Amino acid sequence: MASTAPVVRHARREDVPAILGLIRELADYEHALDSVEATEATLAATIAFAPSDPSVVSPNPETGLPITEPVSPSKPARCLVLTDPDSGVVVGMALYFYNYSTWRARPGIFLEDLYVKQSERKKGYGKRLLVELAKEVEAMKGGRLEWNVLKWNEPSIKFYESEAIGAQMMSEWVGMRVDGEGLPKLAKLLD
Amino acid sequence: MASTAPVVRHARREDVPAILGLIRELADYEHALDSVEATEATLAATIAFAPSDPSVVSPNPETGLPITEPVSPSKPARCLVLTDPDSGVVVGMALYFYNYSTWRARPGIFLEDLYVKQSERKKGYGKRLLVELAKEVEAMKGGRLEWNVLKWNEPSIKFYESEAIGAQMMSEWVGMRVDGEGLPKLAKLLD
Repeated sequence: MASTAPVVRHARREDVPAILGLIRELADYEHALDSVEATEATLAATIAFAPSDPSVVSPNPETGLPITEPVSPSKPARCLVLTDPDSGVVVGMALYFYNYSTWRARPGIFLEDLYVKQSERKKGYGKRLLVELAKEVEAMKGGRLEWNVLKWNEPSIKFYESEAIGAQMMSEWVGMRVDGEGLPKLAKLLD
Repeated sequence: MASTAPVVRHARREDVPAILGLIRELADYEHALDSVEATEATLAATIAFAPSDPSVVSPNPETGLPITEPVSPSKPARCLVLTDPDSGVVVGMALYFYNYSTWRARPGIFLEDLYVKQSERKKGYGKRLLVELAKEVEAMKGGRLEWNVLKWNEPSIKFYESEAIGAQMMSEWVGMRVDGEGLPKLAKLLD
């Protein structure tokens, strides 16, 4: 008997507890569980969700585009969840937002977090989520699908650079960040 | 006589030719002029502009928040321009979009491109643009201001890491990208 394929769909508000569970598992894997400040309430306020009505399928099977609340500066994230074919339980997610390439003057997708429960690995679920995101970039006529990876995470890098996924490492660039106490300090620098 | 301060405001549609000029100058500096596919038309279609009416001041002086067309997945970018205090000519820009931190469940700003004309350097204009972005992150109750820098660009890195700007280098992370022919290939991988 062939097993049923997993379902990938945009998260609904009811998926928030499962999403928070995956976020905490991922942070633990990255040795940073203490850094998780997200709560069910803050996730619920900052992700653009699909309608709870199960008759609405997002992404739209015809256009490939999401059907969710509008994204906005205060609610910039969308989240795909992958559910186990048998139990319907959420076992993976891809949380993302929209980026922009100036040189191309085209939008794209930045994948902020990709995670599949450790017990559900080796089933192609991570690949499935990346494929769904590539489909959305194509559907929106975007230019790029991008994400960051921890340099020590060699198994993931090997997977991303594989023939199937085809990602390139942007080794010539490095990220810079101002956060925490640094933000109000910079904001007031010229006052 | 004290010189007049430069004006920093959100770009209007009429600023597109000046923005494209700065984008081309920046690409030339990064040894990648051939990579610029942006045109006036594609920039005009993908940036959320402030109204042309000069009586509308964006960002709003009271709230610190932008007054522009809404951002959306196909129009994710906002652009601050800095104009010379005497001539009113656009001599610098900060092109940005909204990102998201899952661990914090908070939005933030990603600065895609910061550029000040070479003839206008050493006047504190780059710093002024970064300060404006930090103010918007504060106004929106965001968590982070982030950007990427080319590793060989040591003068910029030194500036960003200075006491005044206070940015941290995210050296433990590396970016991954799927674009060009790789996107349709990945999108069709499981068909």
